[in-house]
Amino acid sequence: MNFFKTSEHAHKGDRFPLDTALADLKFDAHGLIPAISQQYDSGEVLMLAWMNREALEETLNTGRVCFYSRSRQQLWRKGETSGQIQRLKEMRIDCDGDALLLLVDQTGPACHSGRRSCFYNSVHDKSLEIASEPLIDPEDLYRK
Amino acid sequence: MNFFKTSEHAHKGDRFPLDTALADLKFDAHGLIPAISQQYDSGEVLMLAWMNREALEETLNTGRVCFYSRSRQQLWRKGETSGQIQRLKEMRIDCDGDALLLLVDQTGPACHSGRRSCFYNSVHDKSLEIASEPLIDPEDLYRK
Repeated sequence: MNFFKTSEHAHKGDRFPLDTALADLKFDAHGLIPAISQQYDSGEVLMLAWMNREALEETLNTGRVCFYSRSRQQLWRKGETSGQIQRLKEMRIDCDGDALLLLVDQTGPACHSGRRSCFYNSVHDKSLEIASEPLIDPEDLYRK
Repeated sequence: MNFFKTSEHAHKGDRFPLDTALADLKFDAHGLIPAISQQYDSGEVLMLAWMNREALEETLNTGRVCFYSRSRQQLWRKGETSGQIQRLKEMRIDCDGDALLLLVDQTGPACHSGRRSCFYNSVHDKSLEIASEPLIDPEDLYRK
């Protein structure tokens, strides 16, 4: 039986071997699973990106968040160019085993635009309003 | 030029016509975009689901969150069976136009397991620990 069908009926504090759960994760046709990064203390949702199994295992082994870049088709160690890394505080898996929530400690901006969060385009009635300002000029982020 | 490339360089408070932004949203090969639901006041991440363009437009028009169910291949008005609806407080679009963040007011549990959040499987070293208890027995949720 699928692990996530079993864990639905489990109780708070129940523990299972991690390998059993990871074996039943649902990756999509491209071998990817969506991962939400949330700042662990403030609760701010920073970004949504993707992991393949290798990125997920590296993240758990190193404690530093590694995604899979769909555009570059390679592992993407968050912050490898910009220095704006994510330290993993806790990983959570959803009820169906097809999405991840990463509680992280984000150094500086998570977004390539220099903003703290990627979710800065805010819908208000019939307009879209920019909700935040860059913390750092993106040219400075990638010049290093 | 893609709207989201332009909005990267905009400033806090700048406004644009919503239609221009929505026209440049990136749906995947199945016509879907991932949508994170976050409880607007507590910051708790409740779930990740998917929207097609019709679900997105219905959500904006009605203020009640509607997803697209990949398993049932139809619109999924969150709470239509369980009564546990999501009222939309604000929709945000990410920097690339390929993910949505829904700030919502969730009635009761978001998860079909009866738990408030779908992200109750918590990774701790080599185990997976159940992080929360159902608010409501799922049999009661779907018996109505």
